[in-house]
Amino acid sequence: MRWLPDAMGRLQAAALELFLERGYEATTVADIAERAGLTKRTFFRYFADKREVLFIGSERLVEAFVAAVTQAPAEAPPLAAMEAGLHALGDSFTAERHRFAAERAAIIASSPELQERELIKLAAMAAAAAAALRARGVGEPAATLAADAAITVFRVAFSRWVADDRPEGFRALTRESLDTLRMLAAAP
Amino acid sequence: MRWLPDAMGRLQAAALELFLERGYEATTVADIAERAGLTKRTFFRYFADKREVLFIGSERLVEAFVAAVTQAPAEAPPLAAMEAGLHALGDSFTAERHRFAAERAAIIASSPELQERELIKLAAMAAAAAAALRARGVGEPAATLAADAAITVFRVAFSRWVADDRPEGFRALTRESLDTLRMLAAAP
Repeated sequence: MRWLPDAMGRLQAAALELFLERGYEATTVADIAERAGLTKRTFFRYFADKREVLFIGSERLVEAFVAAVTQAPAEAPPLAAMEAGLHALGDSFTAERHRFAAERAAIIASSPELQERELIKLAAMAAAAAAALRARGVGEPAATLAADAAITVFRVAFSRWVADDRPEGFRALTRESLDTLRMLAAAP
Repeated sequence: MRWLPDAMGRLQAAALELFLERGYEATTVADIAERAGLTKRTFFRYFADKREVLFIGSERLVEAFVAAVTQAPAEAPPLAAMEAGLHALGDSFTAERHRFAAERAAIIASSPELQERELIKLAAMAAAAAAALRARGVGEPAATLAADAAITVFRVAFSRWVADDRPEGFRALTRESLDTLRMLAAAP
């Protein structure tokens, strides 16, 4: 078999194009492989199915997030440790990744099935974050509350990031959202 | 057809019994109707499918929640308005309802399909709450952050309520969770 430079990236780009052109439901793996100039066999070497094109790499994101929470200074309060986790995600949500993220978000918004998958992914991320806080000695319900609040901050910052014209701004938007949450919580 | 006293309640009780005895997947509508001493036809007069036995009434809960948010004093800050919504839910999560809620929670925890449905329901509740806050003049992202934070508080309080020995305590647990969140947010 000949070597294919960045077959995975080409398949991902082809899939996004087709999902946006024809819709997610109407696009098949055969369509994606054809558009990328590759075979279905090659597609399945990288992805289990067409949905995975949109979700691959999310385990790695969760790992980076959790590692940063775990490594935050021992004296950092729970939300500050979560903030360190969110900051680490900024390594992935760069200006270069902005277009992919925005297109992916539009595709997910178009499909209830994909929205469910995204919800499940975020719930798993919250559960992993709560476990990381408990490992730092944070009790319950504080660990779950801090983890879920941070995932809410992430979700809000991420959707603002993909929606607006500040591709460089994921970290700034995260800080703003967290500050807003702190302000809301401080009101009587 | 003869009149059946509380057919709906009997079907619901029979369904919960069977879900706990045999598992959710293994239980059929025919089993539920038989256990309740009723027909499948009667079952389908009340529920679209066996899943609905566990989720019926949730629209009414969301309506009560949103109505209380909407009716909170105009000067109430966003989280205080959400707190009014959570307080209203206490009318439903009474000591009498505790056993049903606890059994239902155990069944939902046993099935990924039911957990997904629960996640979707909570996401819809958060979206409705955010819309109610926007209608009160709260801007974004504050509305989404306050609504999601309140749903997190609800989720934590609810799971403590079904898990522990304070059936009368839903409102107290809600207050405690909200206080914990405020405390977490106040730490640097």
